[in-house]
Amino acid sequence: MDKVFVKDLVEGETVTSFFLAKQVQVRQRRSGESFLTLVLADRTGEVPAVMWEGAEAAGRELAEGDILKVQGLLGTYQGERQLTVTRLRKAAPGEAALEDYLPRSPQDPGLLLARLRTAVEGIQEPFLQRLLQGLFADEAFLGAFTTAPAAKAIHHAVLGGLLEHTASVVGLCELLTGYYPALDRDLLLAAAILHDVGKVRELSWERTFDYTDAGRLLGHITLGTLLIEERIRAIPGFPEGLAERLLHCILSHHGELEWGSPKRPKTLEALVLHYAEDLDGKVNAFSHFVESHPDPQRPGWTQYNRSLDRYLFFGREPQPAPTPEA
Amino acid sequence: MDKVFVKDLVEGETVTSFFLAKQVQVRQRRSGESFLTLVLADRTGEVPAVMWEGAEAAGRELAEGDILKVQGLLGTYQGERQLTVTRLRKAAPGEAALEDYLPRSPQDPGLLLARLRTAVEGIQEPFLQRLLQGLFADEAFLGAFTTAPAAKAIHHAVLGGLLEHTASVVGLCELLTGYYPALDRDLLLAAAILHDVGKVRELSWERTFDYTDAGRLLGHITLGTLLIEERIRAIPGFPEGLAERLLHCILSHHGELEWGSPKRPKTLEALVLHYAEDLDGKVNAFSHFVESHPDPQRPGWTQYNRSLDRYLFFGREPQPAPTPEA
Amino acid sequence: MDKVFVKDLVEGETVTSFFLAKQVQVRQRRSGESFLTLVLADRTGEVPAVMWEGAEAAGRELAEGDILKVQGLLGTYQGERQLTVTRLRKAAPGEAALEDYLPRSPQDPGLLLARLRTAVEGIQEPFLQRLLQGLFADEAFLGAFTTAPAAKAIHHAVLGGLLEHTASVVGLCELLTGYYPALDRDLLLAAAILHDVGKVRELSWERTFDYTDAGRLLGHITLGTLLIEERIRAIPGFPEGLAERLLHCILSHHGELEWGSPKRPKTLEALVLHYAEDLDGKVNAFSHFVESHPDPQRPGWTQYNRSLDRYLFFGREPQPAPTPEA
Amino acid sequence: MDKVFVKDLVEGETVTSFFLAKQVQVRQRRSGESFLTLVLADRTGEVPAVMWEGAEAAGRELAEGDILKVQGLLGTYQGERQLTVTRLRKAAPGEAALEDYLPRSPQDPGLLLARLRTAVEGIQEPFLQRLLQGLFADEAFLGAFTTAPAAKAIHHAVLGGLLEHTASVVGLCELLTGYYPALDRDLLLAAAILHDVGKVRELSWERTFDYTDAGRLLGHITLGTLLIEERIRAIPGFPEGLAERLLHCILSHHGELEWGSPKRPKTLEALVLHYAEDLDGKVNAFSHFVESHPDPQRPGWTQYNRSLDRYLFFGREPQPAPTPEA
Amino acid sequence: MDKVFVKDLVEGETVTSFFLAKQVQVRQRRSGESFLTLVLADRTGEVPAVMWEGAEAAGRELAEGDILKVQGLLGTYQGERQLTVTRLRKAAPGEAALEDYLPRSPQDPGLLLARLRTAVEGIQEPFLQRLLQGLFADEAFLGAFTTAPAAKAIHHAVLGGLLEHTASVVGLCELLTGYYPALDRDLLLAAAILHDVGKVRELSWERTFDYTDAGRLLGHITLGTLLIEERIRAIPGFPEGLAERLLHCILSHHGELEWGSPKRPKTLEALVLHYAEDLDGKVNAFSHFVESHPDPQRPGWTQYNRSLDRYLFFGREPQPAPTPEA
Amino acid sequence: MDKVFVKDLVEGETVTSFFLAKQVQVRQRRSGESFLTLVLADRTGEVPAVMWEGAEAAGRELAEGDILKVQGLLGTYQGERQLTVTRLRKAAPGEAALEDYLPRSPQDPGLLLARLRTAVEGIQEPFLQRLLQGLFADEAFLGAFTTAPAAKAIHHAVLGGLLEHTASVVGLCELLTGYYPALDRDLLLAAAILHDVGKVRELSWERTFDYTDAGRLLGHITLGTLLIEERIRAIPGFPEGLAERLLHCILSHHGELEWGSPKRPKTLEALVLHYAEDLDGKVNAFSHFVESHPDPQRPGWTQYNRSLDRYLFFGREPQPAPTPEA
Repeated sequence: MDKVFVKDLVEGETVTSFFLAKQVQVRQRRSGESFLTLVLADRTGEVPAVMWEGAEAAGRELAEGDILKVQGLLGTYQGERQLTVTRLRKAAPGEAALEDYLPRSPQDPGLLLARLRTAVEGIQEPFLQRLLQGLFADEAFLGAFTTAPAAKAIHHAVLGGLLEHTASVVGLCELLTGYYPALDRDLLLAAAILHDVGKVRELSWERTFDYTDAGRLLGHITLGTLLIEERIRAIPGFPEGLAERLLHCILSHHGELEWGSPKRPKTLEALVLHYAEDLDGKVNAFSHFVESHPDPQRPGWTQYNRSLDRYLFFGREPQPAPTPEA
Repeated sequence: MDKVFVKDLVEGETVTSFFLAKQVQVRQRRSGESFLTLVLADRTGEVPAVMWEGAEAAGRELAEGDILKVQGLLGTYQGERQLTVTRLRKAAPGEAALEDYLPRSPQDPGLLLARLRTAVEGIQEPFLQRLLQGLFADEAFLGAFTTAPAAKAIHHAVLGGLLEHTASVVGLCELLTGYYPALDRDLLLAAAILHDVGKVRELSWERTFDYTDAGRLLGHITLGTLLIEERIRAIPGFPEGLAERLLHCILSHHGELEWGSPKRPKTLEALVLHYAEDLDGKVNAFSHFVESHPDPQRPGWTQYNRSLDRYLFFGREPQPAPTPEA
Repeated sequence: MDKVFVKDLVEGETVTSFFLAKQVQVRQRRSGESFLTLVLADRTGEVPAVMWEGAEAAGRELAEGDILKVQGLLGTYQGERQLTVTRLRKAAPGEAALEDYLPRSPQDPGLLLARLRTAVEGIQEPFLQRLLQGLFADEAFLGAFTTAPAAKAIHHAVLGGLLEHTASVVGLCELLTGYYPALDRDLLLAAAILHDVGKVRELSWERTFDYTDAGRLLGHITLGTLLIEERIRAIPGFPEGLAERLLHCILSHHGELEWGSPKRPKTLEALVLHYAEDLDGKVNAFSHFVESHPDPQRPGWTQYNRSLDRYLFFGREPQPAPTPEA
Repeated sequence: MDKVFVKDLVEGETVTSFFLAKQVQVRQRRSGESFLTLVLADRTGEVPAVMWEGAEAAGRELAEGDILKVQGLLGTYQGERQLTVTRLRKAAPGEAALEDYLPRSPQDPGLLLARLRTAVEGIQEPFLQRLLQGLFADEAFLGAFTTAPAAKAIHHAVLGGLLEHTASVVGLCELLTGYYPALDRDLLLAAAILHDVGKVRELSWERTFDYTDAGRLLGHITLGTLLIEERIRAIPGFPEGLAERLLHCILSHHGELEWGSPKRPKTLEALVLHYAEDLDGKVNAFSHFVESHPDPQRPGWTQYNRSLDRYLFFGREPQPAPTPEA
Repeated sequence: MDKVFVKDLVEGETVTSFFLAKQVQVRQRRSGESFLTLVLADRTGEVPAVMWEGAEAAGRELAEGDILKVQGLLGTYQGERQLTVTRLRKAAPGEAALEDYLPRSPQDPGLLLARLRTAVEGIQEPFLQRLLQGLFADEAFLGAFTTAPAAKAIHHAVLGGLLEHTASVVGLCELLTGYYPALDRDLLLAAAILHDVGKVRELSWERTFDYTDAGRLLGHITLGTLLIEERIRAIPGFPEGLAERLLHCILSHHGELEWGSPKRPKTLEALVLHYAEDLDGKVNAFSHFVESHPDPQRPGWTQYNRSLDRYLFFGREPQPAPTPEA
Repeated sequence: MDKVFVKDLVEGETVTSFFLAKQVQVRQRRSGESFLTLVLADRTGEVPAVMWEGAEAAGRELAEGDILKVQGLLGTYQGERQLTVTRLRKAAPGEAALEDYLPRSPQDPGLLLARLRTAVEGIQEPFLQRLLQGLFADEAFLGAFTTAPAAKAIHHAVLGGLLEHTASVVGLCELLTGYYPALDRDLLLAAAILHDVGKVRELSWERTFDYTDAGRLLGHITLGTLLIEERIRAIPGFPEGLAERLLHCILSHHGELEWGSPKRPKTLEALVLHYAEDLDGKVNAFSHFVESHPDPQRPGWTQYNRSLDRYLFFGREPQPAPTPEA
């Protein structure tokens, strides 16, 4: 059965498709009868829903986060769309594709991964080369690394977001190594590729983006450090000083203690990685925030941006006359 | 007369040359006789000096910051070099070249300026183009802009430092406009060229680097804003919104209120300019600090860096064996 | 047609008058019919309103911020007053007076302005005198200066608030120049008169108080500095040092970098202006907050004051017995 | 014997007078003989001294802070004045007047006290009136209150400084009660008079200004609160609410928790007292700092001011030509 | 009449009992009739209530915080319990027991008090001993001290909470005096017993926990200091140094100025008291927060904890297999 | 040859012994001859030294941190002891014992270690038991763990300081697990034992206490986490949740991000460990600081304590009369 997406639902038509359940609640009318309210969602949006018959039985079976097969009719209530549900059951495992329910990066993961592999191949330092080749040959790691979001919210909070963010930071660092010759190119690129790998253990992305227990208790900086150090230890002869400088870049990439780095950058590469990572995240967050504006084509002010604690101005004024007066 | 530089003074030889006077002091021996101690300096370093005869008369005439014609013999005192002065007078105006006494950027100002002119020519927006062409045709401005330091201390504190820093930030912004297509290239480059022009009024660089009264009372952010706004007002038809977005970049380029910007960045160009400016300053400060280390060739730790409030690690470990064990 | 104010609406009576529209929304009953809800406001308060007939047509035409001519009957819903609207159209330009819809300072603007003119005349320093006379002869400026609010919220957020606040700060500075003879009276009074003039460009006050684009991007401190400096430049021979000290007072009047001043006060006049301005704003905010209390006559605690981050105690206890026991 | 002050010592003349001893040290020449170095001080300045004969015996008897009777000859050493001491003994109690050795406020304490008494008499509220009359009738308290400094350093750090500072704050508050009619005049003036009385127990001023144990452990805010509350408790019928509002002003007069107030101002009087106290201290500190400048008559920059963390600009530029060009 | 508690109400049954009134509101149906909604509460929980008849008359008489005698029938509305009230009047004084309406510490106050008396008896220092014996013989003080909560919210916000918290801190300090022999045992224990006594004047606990005027204006640190100092003054010969060290512990027990202590700990006893008090409060808050979790038996994460600004993890994982593999 | 300690040198006597060299400098007399100045040190103190003959040759061979065999005569210069050196050579490896040159904890390491072993044996949880037994069976680790200092400065900066600090924190945690039954005793004690093990890699203690490269780049929190996690991974079946809770305690034991912990405490055990560790360090620092006071027996104020940013009061007043007046 083809998935019908929330954004494509048509008022007055009946739909049968799979949706993710949110905010499930059994409520009671003054008359005493029960009814079920819930929100149905997929990666294209959300729609409130109500079920008048069989609410109690349905309510006992459902939990938030379930994927449901739903039959219903789209109407409106208080000026908003509402789906009146006539039938409903939990999806069997495999019936529905995760990617229909969580937003995904629009960029092609194959392409992004290829770009990272090219960066790996360009690294001259043999131990860093070997460390990265080992990681990129580990299918379990690669599966997680190419699927994980980069955050629960704020920036790159989409499936594939970690890969997209990593590739973007690596690209920026490649530019910067060309611009500042004092940088140790191999070290900076290796650190850029690895800086957020701990997120494959910090976050979970089944039906919803959330933190794992390890994520909340240890955090991606420590989880990444543990993951990398284990691989370094398995490579005989890996120079200790190189390992320390690489791990220092991972640890310090948030830049300041109060932003969660247990050490502040003390090498040129760590300093540059911090700026590159921070800048790329901010530019991405800015652009996404503007895209979510109702009318992103006309210059103006966004809603209040909580993470930057300010309003943002986007767009350019209409083109001026071609030449100023002489 | 050829200048003899401090770094070239030879123990046991007599020298006659011009030097900048620092720490001038008339002191008294237990025997009651006066003598004069001072420090003689030029852009290559400093040497302590003592004058036994005619100290009182000389002391009355001299002030710190004077350039002196000095005759003396280089010896040592308590293990350090000391010049015993036999004759001394103040230099007449024009006898000595300022550049011998203040450090100068090693980069060629003509080349840097040419790079900026190329950037100006690449700007498509006609009003920004005209604003910048006007500024770069103003010989008085250009003279100051190519001579001024970028700071009293910390980074680019050399003659020509403002030009060097500006060119470096502009180059970085050119890379970034290529990388982030959402950026308004013309606006970002114009802002990068102009972001620190207020420093030509904030700083003075006669004999020593210091702040002017206007610099301490108003600061380069406001001085630059005033300078640019006056020129904008003189261009009929300059679009108001464009002027506001340009001046916003100047005002907010320090990034946070507590770093002296009266507004934080609210446009993508202002945000990127802040990062570019901050990163370029930090990389430059890092590199200069390492160069001032007694042994910058061997990897290790710098002295404590006050402006970053930490020790810095520089250099790479000796090359490892060419390949890790298979 | 005489304006009927919100505070004068009588339950059970029909009214026909102009009101400002807020929170316009077309909603749908379960039965499928549309109805319109909105809030009607003027400077005396707000009342919720509902319109059952012709809602869709009306909704298409209206926008928040419109001034409407409304006919309706005042009833109650869920214990609160509600106007049931029977007819409604947008006001034609000029039909309604702005001052009916925005709160206005209770103080007489003519009197306040006269007080400022007297202060200007009392300034001895000829260049400051001339600068201020020029400004107070500019009708366009005066029109804005006497109408603008002093803030979007918190203190003096009323039409005429900027004038009221300025006059109050000037009066306080007059007291202080008498008390601290070290102060340069002319400089302090000129700075007090000018300190917030940038608000005429930072704020807009058509139908609602808001920031302009220039206000958000540049802020009133910079806008005021630009406005004053342009006038200074037009006065031949204006002493540069005097201009710097005056502009320094404007720039630094918020007192600390993190409160938006790009420089902290470094002269006695700048220091005193900052305290006077801050104190006057706080006393005004305190008094307005107490006046908005349901029972401002009985001593007690206000609601939580968000801008001061505390509860405030107002009033005095009932008079004690006339004399303490001997 | 008339006191000869340090500032009046004449080179080449012998002096016999009393001085305060500082930095007492017995040292040894390479030849093995001992000599005594010390600094002799009074309220007009300091002079280094040396004693060649009888150094060991003298050194055993002396301690820093002793007042000495000294005979010696004023010469110079390394360009600075130095007193060569020939005889020396500790002063007997009563031989020397404390006021010769500690700086004293130039203002007349009798006049200042009279001003405060007038303020007390102007208070209408009978219980506040009685509280203050009681305090100003307590001779022991008055003795301390009129002698104590207002601080160990920074502002009003002179004998009589507490009285001077208090009178100045009271005078300022009198102006403000006239300006802001919402203020409870009696409460504000009583609080202004009492705000720093705890300093009579916080500081000691015998030979040098220092903190007492109680001062360091409890602080003048708590010590003042205890002192006032004990007196309030002794007045039958003192209204509890009035006592709380008065003590609140004392507690909160530093304005913020991090400045040592356990409560922030929550009444209008407490708010105004904090501003008045802070402003008066800052104006006083600014003026004293400028007076200590080598050349306070010519406009310019002070040394770096540690407590304000900035350089200060003082003075006015030379008079401009009498009129601007027409 | 026996109290029926909210947690024991049975659906479908009629109840007659006393409850505390909260959120009293008279509302209007579209039909124009009035009805009364309120929340009824006691120490076991809350239930929403509605009264259809006689709402206006009842509404005029009631205020939030009243204790009511209520007759009604428990039903449900929108899936939640709701009491439909048929009769209602205000309770006469003495009809209802305060303890039924405010939560109470589960610990036996007699036992806790006995524990404190034992601690008092163990104090060797005679003046501290006498100070505490005097306090614990004051029945009015004891009544308040054993009933007061320790806070309005966050930790120990229950009747008897102050006693429970004090006893817990005293017990912890007893352990610490055994562990760190450098501590002055008598001083630390006396300070631990007394550290929060000011809360008997800072808080009120009639029907609801709130701050008194004195609590908001002066705070428990100052109120406690005043209370203790008055008693010290009444004991002839109480050593001044001891009094200062004791009061210092009270003043500084919040540890930092920004947490409301006017002095930071400067003695070992003050330092240890601060840690003991802070740790005990945090452990108590943590445990209470976990207990309020819906399922405190299964390990997991709490709701977001506002006072600690984080999520908390509680519980232990299920027991592992008894032994690791050899 | 028996070591002669600095504190035992006798004026006028000749000594031959080993000392640590500090501040080595070759200087020149006005006459042109060279001489050598240095400071000789061991764990009991320091003495300045001078060598008149053979200075240049000696100076070429020596470096700071060398251990020297020295022959010389103790005299005085400018009132201080000075050793005039007649012969001097570098010590051969093994000639001198490290412990003579660095301060060592006065506590018996065998006893401390035994106490920790007892704590390990008391742990019931089999995997934690096994983890700790493994660590305490590792001789290389034990050697470092029992010798390392706990810090470069401030607290426990002595050989054996890490062991002493760990044992003290463990003892305190044992008390606390008895007092707060909600604590997971096994987890808390294991975390207490392990919390600072990373210091064996963070610090170096050869001749002087310093940070290693790894210490500065990664820090003891990360180094300890890596060390523990490697051992956990080597124990098959170690429960993942237990590992996460243990490592969380290590990571968060500094309590706040700005104090270097990448996560703040989120479990009860992590919270308590942080307080115990912080309190024990503070009590230790306080006591050591008092012991370094010239007269620690008489109550009074210490020098300014930089790490606590305050003066500390120590000692108790002289015993009062045995009983207060009745």
